[in-house]
Amino acid sequence: MLNQIIQEMLPRIEEELRLVIEATARPHSAQLSGMLRYHLGWEGEGAGPEAQGKRIRPLLVLLSARAVDGKWEQALPAAAAVELIHNFSLIHDDIQDQSTVRRGRPTVWVKWGIAQAINAGDTMFTQAFWALNRLEETVSPETALEASRVLQQVCLQLTEGQYLDLAYEQVDFLSIEAYWPMVSGKTAALLGGCMELGGLCAHATPNQRESLREFGENLGLAFQVLDDWLGIWGDAALTGKSTESDLVSGKKSLPVLYGLANSEIFSQRWRRGKITSEEVNDIAGILRECGAEAFTLSTAEQLTQKALNALTSAFQDDISQASLLSELAKQLLSRKS
Amino acid sequence: MLNQIIQEMLPRIEEELRLVIEATARPHSAQLSGMLRYHLGWEGEGAGPEAQGKRIRPLLVLLSARAVDGKWEQALPAAAAVELIHNFSLIHDDIQDQSTVRRGRPTVWVKWGIAQAINAGDTMFTQAFWALNRLEETVSPETALEASRVLQQVCLQLTEGQYLDLAYEQVDFLSIEAYWPMVSGKTAALLGGCMELGGLCAHATPNQRESLREFGENLGLAFQVLDDWLGIWGDAALTGKSTESDLVSGKKSLPVLYGLANSEIFSQRWRRGKITSEEVNDIAGILRECGAEAFTLSTAEQLTQKALNALTSAFQDDISQASLLSELAKQLLSRKS
Repeated sequence: MLNQIIQEMLPRIEEELRLVIEATARPHSAQLSGMLRYHLGWEGEGAGPEAQGKRIRPLLVLLSARAVDGKWEQALPAAAAVELIHNFSLIHDDIQDQSTVRRGRPTVWVKWGIAQAINAGDTMFTQAFWALNRLEETVSPETALEASRVLQQVCLQLTEGQYLDLAYEQVDFLSIEAYWPMVSGKTAALLGGCMELGGLCAHATPNQRESLREFGENLGLAFQVLDDWLGIWGDAALTGKSTESDLVSGKKSLPVLYGLANSEIFSQRWRRGKITSEEVNDIAGILRECGAEAFTLSTAEQLTQKALNALTSAFQDDISQASLLSELAKQLLSRKS
Repeated sequence: MLNQIIQEMLPRIEEELRLVIEATARPHSAQLSGMLRYHLGWEGEGAGPEAQGKRIRPLLVLLSARAVDGKWEQALPAAAAVELIHNFSLIHDDIQDQSTVRRGRPTVWVKWGIAQAINAGDTMFTQAFWALNRLEETVSPETALEASRVLQQVCLQLTEGQYLDLAYEQVDFLSIEAYWPMVSGKTAALLGGCMELGGLCAHATPNQRESLREFGENLGLAFQVLDDWLGIWGDAALTGKSTESDLVSGKKSLPVLYGLANSEIFSQRWRRGKITSEEVNDIAGILRECGAEAFTLSTAEQLTQKALNALTSAFQDDISQASLLSELAKQLLSRKS
């Protein structure tokens, strides 16, 4: 059922995105539009579903709207907007992190230079807000205005999260508490915003909107914590592809922060400098022994439970309406890579 | 009279800007807010009126509103928004152009690094749209929504102009025609948007709004063309400070494009590579002889006339309402440096 609905929604999301990119294109900058279409996975070498990503965020918007009043089509402008915000932030993140590959292809800045990539991101940022205008037709002017407010709050949280992420790279020690505002901003805020926007477009009550956002935020946090677990104990991290371990990249993920706070052996090794692929198994073992793995998994479990509780409270009258959302949550949180 | 009104408006603009920056500040990123306050000229070494810039754009919004219905205070949210868009674009421009100094002080990227500066610009972009929300209280929800649409169009033009500016750096030859879409996007679109937003907040008719925008756009173009004239024949360019000549920086300004199209001597010299400070006087002379200076000045004159005509058509009923705007235009277009 979920997959069938998703297969119905995905082409409509692409259609709405294309409409926005075309309607906002300007007469003298065809190449700029081309950069955006490349980043969205539609053209250039390697274009196709892999390069497009999973469109999780727009799907959350539409599934949220569908759960509330069944009419997901009218939320399509909001679905396009969140995907554009997500992709704008990726274009800029890739410059900030000096990442050369995104979804298997060279990043925008690698292909067109940093200056043009900053500008391409700025263009897509504008397009995200432009996309919301169409809610005036599909729902109402009040909804368009309120949606823009919701998206602005998300963006303020996103840039706070990104600020913290960049700032954290510069420090040696970080407490476990410092982790939460960063991932709240970088991951959870947008997922919460997706759910809230879907509800908004479907005339959810204020309480329901609040619960939907809480579901999205906790889903985002749980997703990030599990991603951190995969980054150290996942198959790719532990086996042959051990360069994929977060221990090698030096990422200050949740298990690492737990280890820094609770294991003297781990802390000493961490402070000595870069961990090599060869050490990855041993150090993952040290972290497991000090309780970092158990802590990470139980944290993910608690967050998942919080997310599902929020869903229950959003659909008190008839929890069966939320079945696709809880199914999607379970799919997202059971991935192995 | 004009100066007296401006002195009344300026503190209100700063107040509105501060309100936006404070209301959108987030709990875990005080340093990020600090970057924005630094860039706006409020804090850090060298803070003060010089570092703040002239706030021309918000003044245009308020003078436009005042000319239409007298009530400029209710346009303050739009005034803040355009200044934030202008400053967001400066933060990113400075990275793109590798400019180290802005209004006499180190640029944001020089102080906090490129990654944080990109993020600071993104934050200010969001704040610009946030600022418009308050129009819902001061004017009406419909106005807030329409203002957001106007600002989005401006941003799409801005990024097109920036795209062209960056792209033009990579090419040797450029036609005179190629100049217009670039400066229309980079300079004229925002000034046009300022005038239109002011009119919108003051309930201007659609025709009046259109004429107001036309005034702003042509004022912007005239301003840019005169800036290009100053860049070659202005005092600073011709005398001791000849490193300030656009000929030395290699800028593809309007007189240069005229010279490339009309003077074989100039074209040959231009193609041979960087012009030195010592050559500046001679080459300015060559450009003058081929007609580049006369062309530039008469173009500026025509654009100024077009701007003033648009103003007349905006205030057919009572042109005296537009007197402050035409006075400001004349002030802006008579500067010598």
